[in-house]
Amino acid sequence: MLSVPEARARILALLAPTGGEIIPLAEAAGRVLAAPLIARLTQPPNDVSAMDGFALRAADSVIGARLRIIGAAPAGHPFAGSVRPGEAVRLFTGSVVPAGADCIIIQEEAEYDDTTVTLREAGLPGKHIRGAGLDFAAGDTLLSPGRHLTARDIGLAAAANHPWITVHRKPVIAILATGDEIAMPGDPIPAGGIVSSNSHALAAFVRANGGIPIILPIAPDDRTAIANAAASASHADLLITTGGASVGTHDLVQAGLSDIGLDVDFWKIAMRPGKPLMFGRLGNLPVLGLPGNPVSAMICALLFAKPAIERLAGLPGTAPSTDSARCTIALSANDHRADHLRATIDRDADGHWTVTPFGPQDSSMLRRLARADAVVLRAPHAPATPAGTTVSIIRLAACGL
Amino acid sequence: MLSVPEARARILALLAPTGGEIIPLAEAAGRVLAAPLIARLTQPPNDVSAMDGFALRAADSVIGARLRIIGAAPAGHPFAGSVRPGEAVRLFTGSVVPAGADCIIIQEEAEYDDTTVTLREAGLPGKHIRGAGLDFAAGDTLLSPGRHLTARDIGLAAAANHPWITVHRKPVIAILATGDEIAMPGDPIPAGGIVSSNSHALAAFVRANGGIPIILPIAPDDRTAIANAAASASHADLLITTGGASVGTHDLVQAGLSDIGLDVDFWKIAMRPGKPLMFGRLGNLPVLGLPGNPVSAMICALLFAKPAIERLAGLPGTAPSTDSARCTIALSANDHRADHLRATIDRDADGHWTVTPFGPQDSSMLRRLARADAVVLRAPHAPATPAGTTVSIIRLAACGL
Repeated sequence: MLSVPEARARILALLAPTGGEIIPLAEAAGRVLAAPLIARLTQPPNDVSAMDGFALRAADSVIGARLRIIGAAPAGHPFAGSVRPGEAVRLFTGSVVPAGADCIIIQEEAEYDDTTVTLREAGLPGKHIRGAGLDFAAGDTLLSPGRHLTARDIGLAAAANHPWITVHRKPVIAILATGDEIAMPGDPIPAGGIVSSNSHALAAFVRANGGIPIILPIAPDDRTAIANAAASASHADLLITTGGASVGTHDLVQAGLSDIGLDVDFWKIAMRPGKPLMFGRLGNLPVLGLPGNPVSAMICALLFAKPAIERLAGLPGTAPSTDSARCTIALSANDHRADHLRATIDRDADGHWTVTPFGPQDSSMLRRLARADAVVLRAPHAPATPAGTTVSIIRLAACGL
Repeated sequence: MLSVPEARARILALLAPTGGEIIPLAEAAGRVLAAPLIARLTQPPNDVSAMDGFALRAADSVIGARLRIIGAAPAGHPFAGSVRPGEAVRLFTGSVVPAGADCIIIQEEAEYDDTTVTLREAGLPGKHIRGAGLDFAAGDTLLSPGRHLTARDIGLAAAANHPWITVHRKPVIAILATGDEIAMPGDPIPAGGIVSSNSHALAAFVRANGGIPIILPIAPDDRTAIANAAASASHADLLITTGGASVGTHDLVQAGLSDIGLDVDFWKIAMRPGKPLMFGRLGNLPVLGLPGNPVSAMICALLFAKPAIERLAGLPGTAPSTDSARCTIALSANDHRADHLRATIDRDADGHWTVTPFGPQDSSMLRRLARADAVVLRAPHAPATPAGTTVSIIRLAACGL
């Protein structure tokens, strides 16, 4: 059996980022930059005032000086002339500092009418002036490829005059649920059957992690049907299958896909829930086979599908980010399989995070998974720990789960 | 001047959640539930096997017993008959436990061919059986109104047989940038002008927080134009304005909107960056006026617009969630204004979070904001602290910023 990190590394080694596409700036938040973002202008483009006040020559800036106001320069309307000795120009936040002036007196430190201003303060050259290029200069690399674009980055790209952004294409993730017993919500349910939950949860998870989900028609427990369904997904960047075995999870999926040339890389991981996991390639199409039990499927998606989607999307693709929390209950010693205990998180009186695993952890209990806030990571052979021990957790909602 | 929490409470008090709409399950992740989600079936619908193995009567379950295999029941194909003494039925994970049987022997503890099975283990009644309703029962309330739906919730709703979900309508947030000096990216830039960044950053922020952004045409510094632009947004759930004043931030916005009946609630907050903030109502339309400086605008959006959008979307709408981190530098004493220091976060050798505020914190420095991971919260009149002090932070990306 492979360890979780080994399995993840082997999946990631076979995946390459999608190519680039040009999209409108307005749609680029959450996408991954595929080309450097270079400033197309200097910001601010000129020396500008950081305050409302008066521009003058520093040599005139003495307490009690009385200067003639020769004009005003609202933001967007620069003063055309030059400030000479004994003169001042009315400025506002963002106004261009006029030629000749090198000093700003803020309006709170001035007495003024329409024609003259009397200074209550001596200014300093450069004070309250934002120099040209304070934020960035034309030609600066503002953001590098691989950047996961935030709302702030979108603002920065706008300020640098980019109406279009070159990002990685969103990876297309085909999702194939298999099994004679499953039906879509609202459809007739076969005798002894259940409603498919994995496809819908996975689709939402894929979307939250930057992919485009395609839910393929459910394949019955028949190797030809499974093979045909998988073949229909050859345009995808990744095929994720769930469950659908009548003799041991994934046997039919593996059999059906092997009929059309699946190259299987591995299929057993030392973890719980979710031991039976399959990764392989069908021609150029990577295939990730998740267990059928919903909790196992979602935990495996968190540990393996999330980094895979990230890698395809142009991000590094790493283990989900962990945090620390104090476990409120004692944990028994773990066996050789990495465990992932579903748990709620809370804050103690001091504001520190605590985590409380549920009692039964059956991999069919979807309601309990929905109520969980996190999983507690238990390394293989981790010793028993008393209540109050600090443990590593993965927050589920923050991972799009 | 109002404190940040006072201002937030006054904004939230004037906002009500949007009404409900029915949307496909497949589109419901990230939305806010507007009606209880009731289980429409029992899950599992029958007693089912948790393992691959054999169903038999517990009375027959003794080591060495040899039982006749009377059939198989793959998942989705329940066994029609009943298990009598001396008989067994082949089962797989998810198979319905046939009538008469109350005991499962897993296949690893059995020797079997097509017709007979010999037990290597004595079973226990109920072991390896998932009882009907283990996950949930028809009529159970699985999720309550106000729930921010995760991918796991989508799986749960699917399993409970819901093809449609009743959620709060996404609030429509109109965004109005004002100012003679600003242009859209790629458009001609006026003399002394800059490219508008706030609208685009805010639109991405609104979308990440569950709203539908509408970027209104930029209004020049003219009260009639501002009034007309605002009037065109009467269909929105919230109007957010940014900057656009020639004499003191917001004066023209306030003047223009007052001409058409703006009822101003407040407009000065004891905070930095972003003191000039306006909140009011234009008829039924709440109006939030943000400062024009991009950093101030985004920090104010984080503190006020985010909870406002959440409240409109059917969530409680609270202060952004905080975390703790060790500040790597000494901080000087704060004045009467709550401060929000832009900072990067990192992990020390022990895996604990550290935070390092940038040096200059000028509110025009968008590039530096983009590089920040968090803001450090400094309460009014907070005393000076040495390097190594634990401080409260807000993580920006986690807030859709």
